[in-house]
Amino acid sequence: MTISKVTVIGLGIMGMPMARNLLAAGFEVTGHNRSAGKIAQFEEDGGRGAQSLAEAVSGADAIITMLPDSPDVEAVADGADGIFARAKTGALWLDMSTIRPDVAVRLAEQAREAGLRPLDAPVSGGEQGAIDGALSIMAGGREEDFAAAAPVFEAVGKTIVHVGPAGAGQTVKAANQLIVAGNIQLLAEALVFLDAHGVDSRAALDVLGGGLAGSKVLDQKGQKMLDGDFAPGFRLELHHKDLGIVTAAARESGVALPLGASVAQLVTAAVQRGDGGLDHSALFALARELSGQTGNRAE
Amino acid sequence: MTISKVTVIGLGIMGMPMARNLLAAGFEVTGHNRSAGKIAQFEEDGGRGAQSLAEAVSGADAIITMLPDSPDVEAVADGADGIFARAKTGALWLDMSTIRPDVAVRLAEQAREAGLRPLDAPVSGGEQGAIDGALSIMAGGREEDFAAAAPVFEAVGKTIVHVGPAGAGQTVKAANQLIVAGNIQLLAEALVFLDAHGVDSRAALDVLGGGLAGSKVLDQKGQKMLDGDFAPGFRLELHHKDLGIVTAAARESGVALPLGASVAQLVTAAVQRGDGGLDHSALFALARELSGQTGNRAE
Repeated sequence: MTISKVTVIGLGIMGMPMARNLLAAGFEVTGHNRSAGKIAQFEEDGGRGAQSLAEAVSGADAIITMLPDSPDVEAVADGADGIFARAKTGALWLDMSTIRPDVAVRLAEQAREAGLRPLDAPVSGGEQGAIDGALSIMAGGREEDFAAAAPVFEAVGKTIVHVGPAGAGQTVKAANQLIVAGNIQLLAEALVFLDAHGVDSRAALDVLGGGLAGSKVLDQKGQKMLDGDFAPGFRLELHHKDLGIVTAAARESGVALPLGASVAQLVTAAVQRGDGGLDHSALFALARELSGQTGNRAE
Repeated sequence: MTISKVTVIGLGIMGMPMARNLLAAGFEVTGHNRSAGKIAQFEEDGGRGAQSLAEAVSGADAIITMLPDSPDVEAVADGADGIFARAKTGALWLDMSTIRPDVAVRLAEQAREAGLRPLDAPVSGGEQGAIDGALSIMAGGREEDFAAAAPVFEAVGKTIVHVGPAGAGQTVKAANQLIVAGNIQLLAEALVFLDAHGVDSRAALDVLGGGLAGSKVLDQKGQKMLDGDFAPGFRLELHHKDLGIVTAAARESGVALPLGASVAQLVTAAVQRGDGGLDHSALFALARELSGQTGNRAE
């Protein structure tokens, strides 16, 4: 089946630029969102807006969901006017949201019973990656469905990998969020440590980035921490949600995550501190507070 | 003062290839080591061997120390036949070992009283970096001494940064070791998590490396963990020593390191498990054991 009609449900920070890149790639793209304003905005970009979920999913060759959390995805998937009830037989359902792996497995089973071809395909790369069509996509599901979805993924992503059966994409995304949160916290602790010892942190970042301590987090977040620039980016409250997924999935499978569990606690504390709407690099603000380094470092 | 005579004290895994690179850069290099075998080996490479410490340091324009720990550096620095007693006035003393920042500060003061020009200049990049002359060098001390030492550093390093006054180099190295240990542990936890959920870890490493979870640690240690290849590289017992430095220095300066302290505990446990002689990526073995994933993964 050739894919020509693609529907995107969820025209948020990520979903909107993805829908635009699908348009640019030549697909006939329909967009749906809970708030009508986003639909109108997408229509201005040359897309087709659908006011109802039923209208959005019927007739589509591929349906992308890009929503905040597990319950949001469940609602559009198994509702009376939802994907399972209204999508045409054989349609691809690509859930690119970040949700619980066990929910992804269950929804994939239901989708298959409804005659659909489901893939869980969460992404990494953030808003900039979505705008640039350069997302990393970690997909779980059947090999033949992954192959069929390739043209759609290639319109929005760069590193596109099939990592296993249904749920595997969400499992890898969970591991991704574990590593990213931890790497951010470690960088924050290192910068607090350097500051307390009167070291030139900017020079230190240069030399740290050149050795084994180098990372994407250091490259992308180090200077922002020193500048006190915590505009999102990826909000701490979403990372908090994701670490809930990681720790619950680890507990269910009998996996001990000594550092993962600790950083999840620190992210909880940062959200409670009132930083949930800031970029996840704002873990630096909590780390500074814990060491008595109060005030805005940028000043 | 033009630097022509350079002495290297400590012809180990790091010191020996550094001494060879100094020879290759055209310096007149003298090597000294506690075990005579290493001295003979260096003489075969075309270097000059010194059987005694006093002989090694007298007459040198620059003296490099590359030794395991703080007491080793103190012994060659302030002994009766040591650097402070025997080196010529105005000589550069470049301590490239990883030692306690407070000890580095004290030794730098004593060196200056002895008429020497000290820099603490620990490195990152490991044995391969030493062989390739591509080390990252983080130097603490006076700006003019750093400038004078540049030709020596350029013979052994690539990223060479002056990060502050005496002790600052060791402080940045401590921060480096904190980040590296934590990034290794987080990668290990992520791989244990993926394995428990039946995900293809090799495919997962590809996609994780392409996103914000990407790091030098992931690139250099991920596949080795999956292969169960823990040949050093950098031994866990040395990283254990370094994390003792980090946690002590943090405590003295009133810095809380929630993740740093946790990973220090895990490295202690890994050393107690009997893995001290393995590469620091062997944190993966402990992480697997803590989650009941026993046996050799490589088989």
